[in-house]
Amino acid sequence: MKFGIMGFSGKMGKEIVETFQESGYMPVLKVDSGHEVIDDEPDVMIDFSKPEALDKTIKICEKYSCPLVIGTTNLGEKETERLKILSKDVAVVQSYNFSMGINVMLEMIKDISSSLSEWDVEIIEMHHAMKKDKPSGTAIMMKNVLSKDVQVHSLRIGGLPGDHKVIFANSGEVLEISHRAISRKAFAIGAMKSAEWVIDKKAGLYTFKDVIKSKGV
Amino acid sequence: MKFGIMGFSGKMGKEIVETFQESGYMPVLKVDSGHEVIDDEPDVMIDFSKPEALDKTIKICEKYSCPLVIGTTNLGEKETERLKILSKDVAVVQSYNFSMGINVMLEMIKDISSSLSEWDVEIIEMHHAMKKDKPSGTAIMMKNVLSKDVQVHSLRIGGLPGDHKVIFANSGEVLEISHRAISRKAFAIGAMKSAEWVIDKKAGLYTFKDVIKSKGV
Amino acid sequence: MKFGIMGFSGKMGKEIVETFQESGYMPVLKVDSGHEVIDDEPDVMIDFSKPEALDKTIKICEKYSCPLVIGTTNLGEKETERLKILSKDVAVVQSYNFSMGINVMLEMIKDISSSLSEWDVEIIEMHHAMKKDKPSGTAIMMKNVLSKDVQVHSLRIGGLPGDHKVIFANSGEVLEISHRAISRKAFAIGAMKSAEWVIDKKAGLYTFKDVIKSKGV
Amino acid sequence: MKFGIMGFSGKMGKEIVETFQESGYMPVLKVDSGHEVIDDEPDVMIDFSKPEALDKTIKICEKYSCPLVIGTTNLGEKETERLKILSKDVAVVQSYNFSMGINVMLEMIKDISSSLSEWDVEIIEMHHAMKKDKPSGTAIMMKNVLSKDVQVHSLRIGGLPGDHKVIFANSGEVLEISHRAISRKAFAIGAMKSAEWVIDKKAGLYTFKDVIKSKGV
Repeated sequence: MKFGIMGFSGKMGKEIVETFQESGYMPVLKVDSGHEVIDDEPDVMIDFSKPEALDKTIKICEKYSCPLVIGTTNLGEKETERLKILSKDVAVVQSYNFSMGINVMLEMIKDISSSLSEWDVEIIEMHHAMKKDKPSGTAIMMKNVLSKDVQVHSLRIGGLPGDHKVIFANSGEVLEISHRAISRKAFAIGAMKSAEWVIDKKAGLYTFKDVIKSKGV
Repeated sequence: MKFGIMGFSGKMGKEIVETFQESGYMPVLKVDSGHEVIDDEPDVMIDFSKPEALDKTIKICEKYSCPLVIGTTNLGEKETERLKILSKDVAVVQSYNFSMGINVMLEMIKDISSSLSEWDVEIIEMHHAMKKDKPSGTAIMMKNVLSKDVQVHSLRIGGLPGDHKVIFANSGEVLEISHRAISRKAFAIGAMKSAEWVIDKKAGLYTFKDVIKSKGV
Repeated sequence: MKFGIMGFSGKMGKEIVETFQESGYMPVLKVDSGHEVIDDEPDVMIDFSKPEALDKTIKICEKYSCPLVIGTTNLGEKETERLKILSKDVAVVQSYNFSMGINVMLEMIKDISSSLSEWDVEIIEMHHAMKKDKPSGTAIMMKNVLSKDVQVHSLRIGGLPGDHKVIFANSGEVLEISHRAISRKAFAIGAMKSAEWVIDKKAGLYTFKDVIKSKGV
Repeated sequence: MKFGIMGFSGKMGKEIVETFQESGYMPVLKVDSGHEVIDDEPDVMIDFSKPEALDKTIKICEKYSCPLVIGTTNLGEKETERLKILSKDVAVVQSYNFSMGINVMLEMIKDISSSLSEWDVEIIEMHHAMKKDKPSGTAIMMKNVLSKDVQVHSLRIGGLPGDHKVIFANSGEVLEISHRAISRKAFAIGAMKSAEWVIDKKAGLYTFKDVIKSKGV
């Protein structure tokens, strides 16, 4: 698989290139603000950069008729609309969180919350002291999935990349599901699994959940 | 709901009586080796005692045409056969582990092990220093569900009632599912949920999984 | 060692008798409201009951000239004064928390908080849903020992006997100290260690810390 | 503070430069195999590279009469001897582990192991799947400090940078001390604290423990 990468010199871009290369995939098209290196036609385009880069990304996908894996956050209505239009021509995987663990965890919580409807539930999340939003977006997703008013405890401490724990308990036992991000490599792996999955899919708009459901990750 | 209890003066028997009474259910028939107190006809019979008590339990169920919840361990072939025969007349819930948390956890592990088939997995279980078997029966069930050769680490330490943890990890993230038994109340609650579920079921042999699947626990 | 026990039929009284007997110590004097069984002279008196029982306990200690281990909470000024007077005649060990783990943990936190003065610190404590006070008294003691304004996160969930965790983190690492109460046996063991320690001590008022410092527990 | 850095383009070298710069310290002398950039005289020299680099490092320290912080592992007898000789002229801080958390943890374990001599103890350590040695060197240090035959459970799983947990338990309670490395930044901070401490010390051979004891870290 040959891939193109938008924002190749950013932290996430570097991580993606490193992770893909470890599996033998070559970056053949690298774009950054101002720079552009094209060695070959890409089989898939990866963009985890900024909303402003979307224009360029879409042009590349159309030019080479190649599918797209996009994890850029803070997309507006306009950008979302443009992805929909692109997805009529090529396959697009779009999600705000490419961590497989978090996605699997959300599914699990959903499944068991009905089985354990009488149990107490609370959430603990811990992130580095620089993170300003409380609770984290991921903790809010978990809370929404639980569909009851669950207390979230947010710790902002040291350099923790991100821990999330959901604790279920009744009077005799405790069941905990915990996720720990080690590094942004988690998201790079999710991007790679999505790229491997999407290259032979027909045009359409997909999410990371579609990838997880049909593919061992 | 009025219930009968086999082995009412043992540790588990006492816990069951206490737990059922907290929910307003009355013990109307109490049996122990040598003792027998009958105040009324039971709606359901509970037996978490010993294989030798099964004879007496079956006689009671047949006499009152009442369903049975049985958590006795170490049942032999003969006893299992007798439960099958009884289940032609009344509903029987039989399981070796009435912890809802453990059963839910086993389901979860099974579900995600295919999604996370490329991740590393290991199991840690901790029990009190008196427990002689290593690994625990529950850890073995977990290992079997994972259907690959997973390493189990067994700690025997202090008075821990029983912790089980399954750890999945790839190079970027970690996902853990942990269960902690607080006390044998966990099993008493499972017995009670089963009793509530079984009283209006038709004759047949059921497991605790059937209870969990159709009822919020 | 022969011991006397005040409030022998309460939950804590039963636990103390059971724990002492497991080590071969015999209850020779058992008192409860209304009941009193005296088989022999006690070497030490144990009281983990109620402030109102103190009168009786003091009379027994004076009559037999035996030391006292007292863990009764909510003692008033008057009762504290009376213990001081008693301690002129016999050795008295008095504390509000006979958990060795918690006492050792408080010492540790104190020691390392100066070494790790630049690290972030937060506290998580989890107790059963019936516990009304937030944060727990133990978490407040921990906060005081840390001598800075530390956030305490309190979970009230299921039947947890009591978990306390202090988390220190800087940008590169995390150090956690956690305590988990398994059952009230923790306090019974502390009482027994104190009894073993106090029987040959001269008159005076001691705390559980004195016991821990001079004796392997 | 102006510092010199040996092996500036390696992973650890980069981390050190980044961490020191975040605190306003400038790299004025950078050496690598083949490269050498000298902008100014260093106040302190940092070396976390390879034994073969020691020659060059010692020459620099002697030339500028500047103290040294050295975290290079696998030093042989000959290298150790040369550091001793250097330490007659300048202050040298030498240790194999510059993680403050691990060092504080080792002290704690030592302190409490005598208080909790009757408790059971076991160790769990988890590292990435690539790590070949079992148990980890740090776990062995912990075991030695506990001065009894403690079982160590080693998990090799995913990309975990390094977790260590020591669990003490008796029949009523559990006390755990856990350390988690987030990244190699932990060691860079330890190097920086050592540099800040050593610049005004007189000639001599010091360890990281000396730094921790006399300085809040």
